Amino acid sequence: MKKTNLEEKEFLQKYDSSMFEKPSVAVDVLIFTIEDDTLKVVMVEREEFPYKGCLALPGVFVGIEESLEEAVKRGVKVETGLTDIYFEQLYTWGDVRRDPRMRIISVSYMALVSKDQLYAKDAGGDIGRLLHPVEEVLQKDCEVAFDHKKIIEYARERIKNKVEYSDIAFNFMSEKFTLPKLQKVYEILLDKELYKANFRKKISNMVAETEEYTSGDAYRPSKLYVRNSEGDCK
Amino acid sequence: MKKTNLEEKEFLQKYDSSMFEKPSVAVDVLIFTIEDDTLKVVMVEREEFPYKGCLALPGVFVGIEESLEEAVKRGVKVETGLTDIYFEQLYTWGDVRRDPRMRIISVSYMALVSKDQLYAKDAGGDIGRLLHPVEEVLQKDCEVAFDHKKIIEYARERIKNKVEYSDIAFNFMSEKFTLPKLQKVYEILLDKELYKANFRKKISNMVAETEEYTSGDAYRPSKLYVRNSEGDCK
Repeated sequence: MKKTNLEEKEFLQKYDSSMFEKPSVAVDVLIFTIEDDTLKVVMVEREEFPYKGCLALPGVFVGIEESLEEAVKRGVKVETGLTDIYFEQLYTWGDVRRDPRMRIISVSYMALVSKDQLYAKDAGGDIGRLLHPVEEVLQKDCEVAFDHKKIIEYARERIKNKVEYSDIAFNFMSEKFTLPKLQKVYEILLDKELYKANFRKKISNMVAETEEYTSGDAYRPSKLYVRNSEGDCK
Repeated sequence: MKKTNLEEKEFLQKYDSSMFEKPSVAVDVLIFTIEDDTLKVVMVEREEFPYKGCLALPGVFVGIEESLEEAVKRGVKVETGLTDIYFEQLYTWGDVRRDPRMRIISVSYMALVSKDQLYAKDAGGDIGRLLHPVEEVLQKDCEVAFDHKKIIEYARERIKNKVEYSDIAFNFMSEKFTLPKLQKVYEILLDKELYKANFRKKISNMVAETEEYTSGDAYRPSKLYVRNSEGDCK
């Protein structure tokens, strides 16, 4: 409960917020998807200095009358054409010299989106061009702006850890999927091969069978499953 | 790899970082411990407006030449007398009107510390006075500054979740402890009673027996255990 009295009002009126030099605050977003059995991240080519021509995470400065989430929404729309994506806050980066222009503190947000959803939410029709394989981006000779390589590495680790104890892998799945496809996604995210029996046991509680089968490809039909959102990670 | 050329140098020299109005950035810290079988959080009484006289999390503005972690260290020392505490970043709070003075974005950091360690790291000798039971602080009629009640609630939830899949409960233990004591700490953090058999099974991998027993109290001696840092949460 906040007490407001005359003395406090006066204090606030006289408060000079320019007493100290302030940092700038930006948001940067990491949008991951899986395409062609590869983990990819949305990146844009910088059109301006610094790091002109380098790949960067989409991001904007936070407006003085704008919440962090509003800045994320705006930045994503302006830089990628995507709308209606659900983001979670990842981490805030505050190294003093992370930007050559000035002190910029960046709050990073992450979204994990299935390829179907990503293309569906792409108003600009250009999203395919912005998808870059994470492994390629993290390679030594890839020119990535600012500390964005470090941010991507951090997010990559976070995903790997979280797959073990949560159901975030399902974010990358279409509504209906086969179990081999789900296993493949787990393998991509964990960056290792899994034993089918162990994998099936681990996820048994998290999926529900449908009456449907795959069709139309050269393999024999596989049963389709959906996410069982009431199930727990074992 | 950053390309620096004449054009970029010129751009950076001319860059006017005062083009846009900037928010202020602060760090706020949550230091939790367990004392008298109660989860407590370190809070200070505000000596100045706004929220004069209310409880607040220790915090400072981030200096323009100071990293977030440096600001945390400085703020904790100045406001609580504690030094050498390990913090993890928790979450960044950016609601536009969260402070009546001006736009302030706050990066919160959390530490979980055993009571023994907390008192050992207290240079000022005053830390006991700053410990407040989390449940009391979260009560409706407790006068807490800014959105700090919300931040504490968020941290409380995070701890509860993390206890389930990690070994963070051990942060609250002395070096050697009995299993009933460990169970009690789990119960406090999870806010529910646990069945002894299930609990012992869950933590069996995370503790190692010593040859020592408790002594000096009225009960019969109990075996002392240490954390087995190679063990995994089952």
